[in-house]
Amino acid sequence: MKKINVCLSPALFTYYAEKDTTIVMIDAVRASASICTAFENDVQFIVPVSEVNDALMYKARGYKIAGERNGKKLKGFDFGNSPFNFTEENIKGEKLAFTTTNGTQVINLVKNSGLKRIDLLIGSFINISALSEYLIKQEKNILLLCSGWKNTLNIEDTLFAGRLAHLLLKKQEFEIPEATNLALNIYKNSGNSFFDFVINNSPRLKSKLEFLEKDIRYCLTEDITEEIPFLKGDKLLSIDEK
Amino acid sequence: MKKINVCLSPALFTYYAEKDTTIVMIDAVRASASICTAFENDVQFIVPVSEVNDALMYKARGYKIAGERNGKKLKGFDFGNSPFNFTEENIKGEKLAFTTTNGTQVINLVKNSGLKRIDLLIGSFINISALSEYLIKQEKNILLLCSGWKNTLNIEDTLFAGRLAHLLLKKQEFEIPEATNLALNIYKNSGNSFFDFVINNSPRLKSKLEFLEKDIRYCLTEDITEEIPFLKGDKLLSIDEK
Repeated sequence: MKKINVCLSPALFTYYAEKDTTIVMIDAVRASASICTAFENDVQFIVPVSEVNDALMYKARGYKIAGERNGKKLKGFDFGNSPFNFTEENIKGEKLAFTTTNGTQVINLVKNSGLKRIDLLIGSFINISALSEYLIKQEKNILLLCSGWKNTLNIEDTLFAGRLAHLLLKKQEFEIPEATNLALNIYKNSGNSFFDFVINNSPRLKSKLEFLEKDIRYCLTEDITEEIPFLKGDKLLSIDEK
Repeated sequence: MKKINVCLSPALFTYYAEKDTTIVMIDAVRASASICTAFENDVQFIVPVSEVNDALMYKARGYKIAGERNGKKLKGFDFGNSPFNFTEENIKGEKLAFTTTNGTQVINLVKNSGLKRIDLLIGSFINISALSEYLIKQEKNILLLCSGWKNTLNIEDTLFAGRLAHLLLKKQEFEIPEATNLALNIYKNSGNSFFDFVINNSPRLKSKLEFLEKDIRYCLTEDITEEIPFLKGDKLLSIDEK
């Protein structure tokens, strides 16, 4: 039987990492939604980069560059990390280099792990149904890898992991370790009111509502796109190109 | 306002560790309950040791030694990690060296952290009311530090953290970060049926029920003792001696 495991913080990845796994990178607010939106609007590909200076080097090579640290757009960058930055007008046909506080760090953590036969996909509320269809059809164990917040866990990624595990379990039987049960319990408590649940449980996001409410509501909306970005070499591509 | 934070795995301790904090070490099944039981039955003191060989050296110096790895009693040891080992007959007046897979490792992690003005207490369902009374009266921020399972998280420690936070919040206002909200949500879902909740959510403990049911039920029972073990130097002592 296939397994769905959940890793609540990238700092725990080494204890959950196994070869032959399909890993779903989760940075629900906002990197995952921004990446999916960029593919919905026909970005050519995205290079996730860890360092701000690396992104600036890509700019010199004709890439658009996007990024934030602690939720704020970076100097010299074309875009921040709001999904509303990645419109068709801004991004269609472009090459994009992208760096964020948590999400792109996690992609590179997996990329550099040396694990054999790993697939890495981007998971977001905005592509959750397409993603769950894909995960049911593929044959590997699944690891839902939450980006959390600066190596600690966060509520919105845990909620997403629980919601996705719930959708998968409606369609197939899986082995469910206790971290997955923990995420499923969090999802159960949300009553499917994701925005209210997240805001009530995250003082961090609540404190940013004045600036981020529109983004947060978008990031917590299901099924805006059927795009599933996946990592191939150094690049995120649309799954259609797999 | 004082803060209650929750660290779900010792591998995340470095991201939650702050000076001037009262840390509650949680290894709900079974080390925390075993340590509290030993003090209830008048052990003189307990030295938590990380390595099996260190414990054996204490034996040569007249200590009783107790310990397990992966839930099993160790060769040459007087006792395993069942709370039922620590009867008055076995333990009264004795010096005890104790090593377990998770709990005693965590005590030593805190001890060796170099953090200033840290108090370390042992928290268990069996001393939860006495512990919450003590925590309300003291002035520091509180960190509920779960031992988890081999650096991953577990359900029973998360549940205990949520239950203890719930009791504290009934008596006082605290700052509550999102990890604490996560634990509170888990507690909320338990419906106060701790045994059923833990067994239904932990395949790991469910698989050991044949051997551990009596221990698990004891470890999940509230208020068997008012003892609060605390760390002073290398030793766990009864809080009465503070």
